[in-house]
Order: sequence, then structure tokens, then C-alpha cells
Amino acid sequence: MSINVSPIEASYGLMSTSESETDFVHHIALFAALLCACIVIGHLLEESRWMNESITALAIGLGTGCVILLTSGGTSSHILEFKQEFFFIYLLPPIIFNAGFQVKKKRFFQNFTTITSFGAIGTLVSFAIISFGATRLFPKLDIGYLEMKDYLSLGAIFSATDSVCTLQVLNQEETPLLYSLVFGEGVVNDATSVVLFNAITKFDLSDMNTYTALKFAGNFLSLFVLSTFLGVLVGLVCSFTIRTLYFGRNSTDREVSLMILMAYLSYVLAEVFGLSGILTVFFCGIVMSHYAWHNVTINSQVTTKHAFATMSFIAEIFIFMYVGMDSLDVEKWKFVKDSPLQSFGASAVLLGLMMVGRACFVFPISIISNLTTNRMSNKIEFKQQVTVWWAGLMRGAVSVALAYKKFTGSDEQSIQPANALLITSTIIIVLFSTVVFGLLTKPIINLLLPQSSNVDHKQPSSPKSIMMPLLGHGPDVDAERREDETLQNTTNLQMLFNNPTNSIHHYWRTFDDAFMRPVFGGRGFISYVTGARDVALT
Amino acid sequence: MSINVSPIEASYGLMSTSESETDFVHHIALFAALLCACIVIGHLLEESRWMNESITALAIGLGTGCVILLTSGGTSSHILEFKQEFFFIYLLPPIIFNAGFQVKKKRFFQNFTTITSFGAIGTLVSFAIISFGATRLFPKLDIGYLEMKDYLSLGAIFSATDSVCTLQVLNQEETPLLYSLVFGEGVVNDATSVVLFNAITKFDLSDMNTYTALKFAGNFLSLFVLSTFLGVLVGLVCSFTIRTLYFGRNSTDREVSLMILMAYLSYVLAEVFGLSGILTVFFCGIVMSHYAWHNVTINSQVTTKHAFATMSFIAEIFIFMYVGMDSLDVEKWKFVKDSPLQSFGASAVLLGLMMVGRACFVFPISIISNLTTNRMSNKIEFKQQVTVWWAGLMRGAVSVALAYKKFTGSDEQSIQPANALLITSTIIIVLFSTVVFGLLTKPIINLLLPQSSNVDHKQPSSPKSIMMPLLGHGPDVDAERREDETLQNTTNLQMLFNNPTNSIHHYWRTFDDAFMRPVFGGRGFISYVTGARDVALT
Repeated sequence: MSINVSPIEASYGLMSTSESETDFVHHIALFAALLCACIVIGHLLEESRWMNESITALAIGLGTGCVILLTSGGTSSHILEFKQEFFFIYLLPPIIFNAGFQVKKKRFFQNFTTITSFGAIGTLVSFAIISFGATRLFPKLDIGYLEMKDYLSLGAIFSATDSVCTLQVLNQEETPLLYSLVFGEGVVNDATSVVLFNAITKFDLSDMNTYTALKFAGNFLSLFVLSTFLGVLVGLVCSFTIRTLYFGRNSTDREVSLMILMAYLSYVLAEVFGLSGILTVFFCGIVMSHYAWHNVTINSQVTTKHAFATMSFIAEIFIFMYVGMDSLDVEKWKFVKDSPLQSFGASAVLLGLMMVGRACFVFPISIISNLTTNRMSNKIEFKQQVTVWWAGLMRGAVSVALAYKKFTGSDEQSIQPANALLITSTIIIVLFSTVVFGLLTKPIINLLLPQSSNVDHKQPSSPKSIMMPLLGHGPDVDAERREDETLQNTTNLQMLFNNPTNSIHHYWRTFDDAFMRPVFGGRGFISYVTGARDVALT
Repeated sequence: MSINVSPIEASYGLMSTSESETDFVHHIALFAALLCACIVIGHLLEESRWMNESITALAIGLGTGCVILLTSGGTSSHILEFKQEFFFIYLLPPIIFNAGFQVKKKRFFQNFTTITSFGAIGTLVSFAIISFGATRLFPKLDIGYLEMKDYLSLGAIFSATDSVCTLQVLNQEETPLLYSLVFGEGVVNDATSVVLFNAITKFDLSDMNTYTALKFAGNFLSLFVLSTFLGVLVGLVCSFTIRTLYFGRNSTDREVSLMILMAYLSYVLAEVFGLSGILTVFFCGIVMSHYAWHNVTINSQVTTKHAFATMSFIAEIFIFMYVGMDSLDVEKWKFVKDSPLQSFGASAVLLGLMMVGRACFVFPISIISNLTTNRMSNKIEFKQQVTVWWAGLMRGAVSVALAYKKFTGSDEQSIQPANALLITSTIIIVLFSTVVFGLLTKPIINLLLPQSSNVDHKQPSSPKSIMMPLLGHGPDVDAERREDETLQNTTNLQMLFNNPTNSIHHYWRTFDDAFMRPVFGGRGFISYVTGARDVALT
């Protein structure tokens, strides 16, 4: 067997280059069994004050890694080789699409300015501080030479937050503003950091001046706009097709298949055009839940809602389990053996920078947001600001995938010591932040927002599994309707005075009702073909 | 780039060894777009008297293959490399699991004897006739030397039927017996032919005598029994877990995830133990729909029902599209170029043998079945026998996958001329039977069973997408209930006299109600935890 294989051959399969077909089936079986175990144990620990799904998956991964390490005589700790292409092509799209599909659109767009400030500007601030801090502090640790590009990549990698843990604790009904801020920031942050990371790796940053900086910014912006546009376009095409052809007449499965395939298509199309698949698929999800979802049969509505959430759920626990298993990889620790202090030093420095970086934008942006809002319900209190700050301290799957993409080449043999150190630091940070910060989240939030403690255990386990009564409940029908009524009780002028974002939202709704819904369908829109169905729905 | 790669490296990815990462994303995008096109066109042609989904997918595959062939200058006709491992590990499990999950269990078990006779004994008869016929007729065609094993494999490959096309035309309500016979035979046939094929490839058949023949038969039987047992076991474990832990309390997604993962686990476990994954996952599907499905929330019921059907649907059109594309593969036709007559000759011989082989068991078994049944409604009329015979003439995905497994080695370079000829013959047979026989199916069945012609267009497109009203409808709740009533109006003795199978079914039901349902849950069983939910359901 040759080891001189092209890097791509083994990339999309989940396997290492040295295993046989039978081994592969064994490993898939073990992985499936572990995922089942993870779900069952996660369910049993549901009532626990401390645990959450991510920590359970990490712990199971670590445990399995130990067993494999012992049985294999210390040569290997994982059963499947994790390739970053696999993550970006198969695991990330369902997670992000589901985030867009289940987002409470009304809330999201009402707080649009604040959310994008947190997600986009905040990520940039975080990125700048981490990169700059690292360039100053890392040379003192003597960890070997790093290029400018490496520092910038580090900044992008560690500005990708993972707020799932906090979302599991927050109560969407009691603190709707806080929930939508944390959720929205998480999604925009994911997209921003990946776009930023890709821009950095593509761009030649060797001679940085005003011109290249401006070009970089322009590049970044056009990526943002074009990706969003593509996502909206694919979502609209899907809605229009389903509405015009009325698939439900013949088959529920065709509707569901078409939605799944179109969603995935939007992601790969973006990648083909060199755009950000994450942003595209996120907006595709929003548009689909706003139009297409209302054009399908009730069965398809229930199915898509839960099928997307399930895919996202499985992808998430898969990633955390893998991170747990991979954190014991002997190959990577071998490089660090001689200098364990440096690895922990680098991790500590990065953790510190992350905390400072977050503080540098959460509090200023909150204050500015409070100054521009007159509505009391939209003011972000200090305790809520601390919660937002805390929610973004965890690092998860995206950081790991980006770090792998950057610091492991196509060939495992060619890992530089400095790169190996950065990989191990990433693993340390992800493990530490997920486990330690994760375990502290429930107590801290109960301390900051004591009113939510009594309903804590009634919470659905995951933000994506909002338990909805079966009929007539869109991903956000209820919330929208309630706010529709509020909206109609205020005049346009009042609204413009009170909150400019709300007013923009109102004009959008008017436009939506007059032009978009008649063409693309949508909640409560009674069309000539789907009439009977929609009436039954509303 | 080395061509000396181990066979497994490229097997599980969907890609050829010569393409780059960007190419791969392009190809996935194209494939996703084609699948979408296939669904939309299939829907538009729904009303057509002749077309069905398989033919549409084949045609689109052929068309795309032509375009790629022309644009690539005649070097390649497909965009993704189809590996049989990919088919058996990812595409087949959802198709078979869904078949088990959606099967009308009551009907299936009522006609169990006839169905297994058709599926198991019939497949063996078919296998024997095709193998024997080929050993006699192929030498006359002068296609090169074939081993005994090759002839036996051919027999197994071409006894795997594909009755989807006929099922799309049959009306489940009007001809329930016929529908369950065709459906049941298709599933048992899939399993039998794959088990047979694996037994042949594993077994040393060089010196065939009574002892090895008996050993072979024993091996075959134990595979059958053990695989079934494993499937039932995993299904029961899943049902018990979901029932005992009551996942729905916290999250619908966990229930759905667990069902999907356990189903897949049953398949890979069977492969790990060297059993037949197809049989295992089929019985796992039956047990899950009988117990586990009734233990989950209503949302999970709707979701699993349609999500499984959707996965199966996508896998099926994917396969047919690929077959269309692959049928233009220049590599394979190159070998045949010098002897086109032989390739078509071999195909014609095999087609003839298939038709004879089917006739040799459908009519005898039907007659025996009619003699042992007293119930008029269970008699198979002559016209229905012809329909059953016709339904099994199409060859599809399983044949292609088995042929690839047998006749392409791990290395494309090593294809023998005789093997290439058998591959092209397989493609010709699949194309011909799917398109020609497929197009003739609707007219022929309307001729044989004229009563069904008037409701033809109201039919759901796929047997898996039975449009059910939303609530309280299990995969087979209605049918079961109706027959429950019939059952209670007859005494045990009468039943035993009329139909022994029915009586066995009755005793099973008593046992099921007394021992199984209290432990594993099931339709209408009101448990202490799930009480409220089940009452609402019934």
C-alpha cells in the first residue's frame, strides 16, 4: 500500500488511509453506538443542574479515546479520521441551515442592528484584539516563528463563538430579547469568522498598506452581500417552485426532498462561486421558513421542522464527540511533549485575550444600542450585558475545524512544531471553555437572572427542539402574530419616532404582503391552488 | 500523483481519484441540481400515462451523461464515481429500512407463507434457472472464459427484482392482496438475492458435492435466521429505551435521532457480524414501526414516517440517475467495441432466462397457494398471477450494485474483457427493462385489471408516500383495525380451519398483547407515562 496518495482521496471519506473496508464498517458501527449512548445519557442527565449535551458528548469522546488509546497500545486515540473538508461539506451546512430555519425572524429583524453589531463588528473587534495581543505576547513564550498570516488566522479562529450552551439555559419566553441577542450573535458570528478566515487565507497579506486593507475590506463586504443574495435567491426559487407546482397534491416526500436538496444546493453553489456557504445557507433557511414552509402540506411542515433540527442535532453531538476523542491524539501531543508549559501558556494567553476582546465590544455596543432605543423592553440591562459577554466565551466546532484547516496541511507528516502547538492549544481551549465555562453557565445565569431558575427544568433541551403544538405553528407563527397586533395598535409616525428599526420592519411587511407573498406564498396567504389547505392551517 | 492507491481509500468518498477538492464541490453542486430537476420533472410528468420517477431519473442521467461526454471530449460520462461500497453503506440501508417501516405488517404476515415462497423459494428457482441457462448458452456466444462462480453470481445478480414501477401503478385499496404480494416479494427478494450473492462470493465452490451443497444451504439458512434475529433485537432495544425513558418529554429531536441511529446501527452491526444487513434492517424497521413508533410523540411519528420515506426516495432517484449516467461510460464500452453483438446477445439470453425463470415459480407457487387457501379473497387469480410475474421483470439498483461488486475489481485497470462485457450487459438489461417494461407496465396492468384505471391518477406517486391524514394513522393502523374487527367476528376454530396462517397470526396477537406490548409499547397501549398522549392518539 502506497502512502503517496493525493491529499483529496481520503478527505471526503471519514477514514484514515490505513484502514481496510471491514475496519471502516466496524468504526462506523462503534460511532453509531456511541452517538446513541450520547443521546440516551444526555437525556438522563437532562435534569442535572450542570451538564449539557456538548459536555456529555465531549466526555464520551474522551472516555472512548482513552479506551482506544489503551487497547491500541498508545498509538491511536480515534476511530475515524476527521478531515476539515468533511466538517465543512457535510456537518456544518445542516447546523447553520437549521439555525436560519428556526430563528424567530420577527425578533431577529427587530433587533437586527444590535445583532449585526454584536455579530459582525464585535467579531472584528475580537479578531483585532486577539491577533494583536498574540503578536505581542507569543514571542515572549518562545514557541517558534509564526507568520503574520498565522496570527491573523488565530484571531479569526478564536473569535468564532459557540453559544449553544448558554442558549440551553436561557428561557426564550421570559427573556426574549436576551435570547434573540445571544442566538442572533452566534449565527452572525459564525458566518463572520468563517468569511474572515477565508479572506485571510486567500489574501496576500505580506505587505499590508492602506490600499490592500481597503481592498480586503471591500472583498469582505462583497462576500457578505453576494452570499446573502444567493441564499435569498435559492430560497425564493424553492418557495416559488413548491407554490406554483403544488407538490403536496401528489407526494409529501417530494416536497421534503426538494427543500432538503435546495438548501444543500444553496450551500454548495456558494462554495462553487467562492462565496460563504454559511451565510448563504443561513439566509436560504430564513427565506424558506418564511415562504416555502407555508406552501407545503401540514405533514411536510412538521417533518421539515423536526428533520432539520434532528440533522443539526446529530451533526453537533458528532462534532463534540470527535473533539473529545481527538484531544487525546498522540501525534499532536508528541510535538508538545518537550514544551508542555508553552502549550498551556499559549492557551492561557489566548483565553485571556478572548475574554478581554469580548468585553471590549459587548459593553460599548450595548451602551450605544441603549442610547438609540427608547423602548424600555429593548434596553439591555447590565446583567444581561454580562450574560451576552459570558455566552460568547465558549469555543466549539467551528474553531476546531478552522484550526485544522489552517494548521494541519494535507499531509500529516508535515506538521510544524509551532503548528502542532497551536492545534493542541485550540483543543485545550475548546475543552476548557466547553467544560469549565459550560459547567459554570447554569449557576451564573441563575445568579444573574434569578427569575428564570424556577422554570429551568421545563426548558427544551436544545434551542432547535421548541416543542410546538402540532397544527398552525410555524417556526415563529405565534410570536409573529402577537407582535402583529402590537404593531397595528401603534401608528407609523409613533413607531418611526420610537424605533426606526421597527418602522423599517413595518414597511417591509407592507411590501411583503403586497408583492412577495402573492408570488412566493407565505403564512396565511390564501392562494387559488392551496386555498383549502391554508384555511385549515390558519 | 500515484495511481498505486489502496482500493479502499477512494471507495467511501463519492469521488474519482483524479479530481481536486474544487472539482468535487462542483460535482456535488451539479448532482444536487440534477436531483432537484429530477423531482420537479417527475412531478410534472405525474399525470402521464407512461412515465414514472425511475424512468425520469434514468433519462436525466443519460442526458447529463451525453452532455458531459461531449464537453469532456469523449473521455468521461459521469461526474461522480460510483463505488459499490458507497451504495451498500449509504444508499441501500435507508431504502430497505423504509420498506420495513412502511410495510402493512398485518397484510404482510397474513400472506407470509405466499410472500416468502415467492421471495425466497422463487428467487432460488430464478437463480438456478438463470445460472444453469447461462452455463449452457454463454459458451455458444464465445464471450471468453467464465468460472462457475461467475455463472452463479450472474444468477444471483439477475434474480434481484425491482418492483417499484409496478407498485406505483397498483392501487393498494382496490387490490390489497396483489399489492402486498408484489411489495412483500420485492423486499424478501432483495434480501434473498443479496444473501445468496454474498454466500456465493464467500464460499469455495470449486468442488461442488453433496456435503458442500448442504453446508452452503446451512450457511444460507443460519444467515437468514441470525440476521432476522439481530434486526428484531435492535428494534426491541430501541422501543424499550424510548418507552422507558420517555424522550418526548424533553425533545422530539432526540427521539427521531435515536430511531435513525439505531436503525443504521442495526445495519452496520449485521455487516460487522458478517450477517445480511438488508434483512436485519428490514426487520428492525418492522419492529420499530410496530413498537417504537407508537411510543414517541405525534410530532416524531409524522417526522419519522416522512423523513424515512424521503431518505429512501432520494437514495432511489440518486441510484437511477447514476445508472443512466454510468451507462455511457466509455471505459466499459471500449472492451465491447470489437464485439457488440456478443454484448447484446448475452443481454438477450439473460433477459429470456429471467422471463422463463420467473414463470417457472410464479404460476406453480400461485397454484399451490390457491389450493391451500379456502378464503376467496386470498385466492390469486390468473390475471393477478400475470401481474406478479410482470412486476418482477424489471431490474434495478441492486443488480447494478452487485454486478459492480463482482465484475469490477478494486482496480479499474484490471477489468477483464469478459467482466466488462457482463457489466455492459447488466447496464443494457437494467436500461431496457426499466424503460421498455416500465413504460409498458401502466397499459398492461390497466388491461389486466381494468377496474383500477379510473382511480389511476389519484394514486400517490411512490409506495412510500401514502398520504395519510395527520393524526392517529400509523403506517398501518387503519388496515389493522379494520381487520381486527373481522378477526373478532370469527372463532378460533373456524379460523384454524379456514386459514392456518391467520390463526398463527391470532396467537401472535394474543402473545403480543399479553407480553410484548406491556414491555415494548405499541399501538393503543396506554402506559403510565405516555397515557395522555396515547389516548389522544386513539
